[in-house]
Amino acid sequence: MNLFLCGSWDDDERDAWAEALRRALGPGHRLLLQRGEVDEASIEVAIVANPPPGQLRGLTGLRLIQSLWAGVDRLLADATVPPEVPVARMVDPAMNAAMAETALWAVLSLHRGFFDCARQQRDGRWHQAPQRRADEVPVLVLGTGQMGRTAAARLAQQGYPVTAWGRTPSEPIGHGVRTVHGDAALAPALAAARTVVNLLPLTDATRGILDARLFSALPAGAAIVNLARGAHLVEADLLAALASGQIAHAVLDVFAVEPLPAGHPFWAHPHVTVLPHVAAQTDVRSAAEVVVRNVRALASGAPLAHRVDRARGY
Amino acid sequence: MNLFLCGSWDDDERDAWAEALRRALGPGHRLLLQRGEVDEASIEVAIVANPPPGQLRGLTGLRLIQSLWAGVDRLLADATVPPEVPVARMVDPAMNAAMAETALWAVLSLHRGFFDCARQQRDGRWHQAPQRRADEVPVLVLGTGQMGRTAAARLAQQGYPVTAWGRTPSEPIGHGVRTVHGDAALAPALAAARTVVNLLPLTDATRGILDARLFSALPAGAAIVNLARGAHLVEADLLAALASGQIAHAVLDVFAVEPLPAGHPFWAHPHVTVLPHVAAQTDVRSAAEVVVRNVRALASGAPLAHRVDRARGY
Repeated sequence: MNLFLCGSWDDDERDAWAEALRRALGPGHRLLLQRGEVDEASIEVAIVANPPPGQLRGLTGLRLIQSLWAGVDRLLADATVPPEVPVARMVDPAMNAAMAETALWAVLSLHRGFFDCARQQRDGRWHQAPQRRADEVPVLVLGTGQMGRTAAARLAQQGYPVTAWGRTPSEPIGHGVRTVHGDAALAPALAAARTVVNLLPLTDATRGILDARLFSALPAGAAIVNLARGAHLVEADLLAALASGQIAHAVLDVFAVEPLPAGHPFWAHPHVTVLPHVAAQTDVRSAAEVVVRNVRALASGAPLAHRVDRARGY
Repeated sequence: MNLFLCGSWDDDERDAWAEALRRALGPGHRLLLQRGEVDEASIEVAIVANPPPGQLRGLTGLRLIQSLWAGVDRLLADATVPPEVPVARMVDPAMNAAMAETALWAVLSLHRGFFDCARQQRDGRWHQAPQRRADEVPVLVLGTGQMGRTAAARLAQQGYPVTAWGRTPSEPIGHGVRTVHGDAALAPALAAARTVVNLLPLTDATRGILDARLFSALPAGAAIVNLARGAHLVEADLLAALASGQIAHAVLDVFAVEPLPAGHPFWAHPHVTVLPHVAAQTDVRSAAEVVVRNVRALASGAPLAHRVDRARGY
């Protein structure tokens, strides 16, 4: 089978993916890094990582577009992506684990005051703040997809009271996680939370969901952890909520513009923790295995895993 | 029963303990904050939190010295503490949980490069370091007491390969934690570790255990997390190991002198995270319940929990 690998990346990154994919694919497959090396109609699979718009135009033989990233919002926004070809997202257990680690680290840091300790160290100040038990710090996870579910379960295992909210109903998560869904359930879930962890997909329905209205539905002094997409957050609203104290601290891994521009107020804000989009990097090794499982499913006529519903947007 | 509460603390802290203890003890007990209010021979229990030396001298009716702190090294160093009276340590599940949270936060921060991210934020720098899976970051927990066991189990639940080392054999910990013991097992356990979390009791056998010899038995670039006692660490050896790169980073909650003195090199060290002895504060509410269980055991002649072996030192 002929497969075409394309993305927005540097040569080193592309070569690492090509090597891992070729090893996982094994013999009998040809992974192309350029179009034009073969009859283009013979390319059956495109393996993509936020390709520049137009890269898939005219690939008439495509039967699968497999994303290497979990988020496909930019891919679906490319009008030249053939609408009839199935798109599959990356759902990589190693990446889910990494995301859950970051969520747990952020919640622990907020709950136990470790961001404050770092500020104290910079100031050479020794101060012991009162300590709360995990069961006194309810966490609301937005998103009940694979990442939201994994993070919610791990947080609950540490003793946090966890509610997971999704737009649509979801299977139970276990570990004592309470699942709720739908617009009407959001305000009461926010009112009961101390920390909100956003792991929603980016769709028209969730764009800008972290805004002044959501912040005002939280108890004063709550914290925001955005690990999903920069466009989920209305940055000006967050700055206003931090200034008023309505939000005590924000941990942000994603931004409207990345890299976060020099001079952006988040960089030096004492109550914003800036992560450089590292909450969950795709693991080349395990992601290559995930791709190959879908390529084999395609070849054998078996159902594809993690197919995107284009109308839903993820 | 007459009980005497004494410690090294300010009035607010003492009053909080007195209130929680009186509520937990209920009627039929008299909790004294001063000696001299009753016939001193009638005081049967001393509830202590690092009392100044000499505070228990002459209490001839004592039948139990119950520490509110987990570490009793300073208490046992007081030669005026009557040697024939049983001493019990605080073993508080809420405190074990808090300690495990801090251990988990430190290991996550080191594994996922979050201390580096904080430095990058101060410098306004956007850099994505490669990501490792938890199963690639072996952790060695020193100490197989209640705190070491709880921390080891929680780390293993997050996917870290965990070895727990104690001076003496211990019961299995579960969750895939490997337990080893004795001097001969320490060097190989160190050689296989990326991060060492110290949760040992402070005794003559463990004083200064975190020294140049231990650091050199680790792979280059390993990390140290000391959550136990300042006297476990030879501070000059750590500074030398950080300077050479043998130790990449240290997270320290405890120090030879506390509060950590102004101008101490740890304060401004880029590879030392200073916590102000907050890894696990005793929870007044749950600790008061632990005390009362032992007071009831004493009254009914039942065995005392968490008795200290004075020869062993904990």
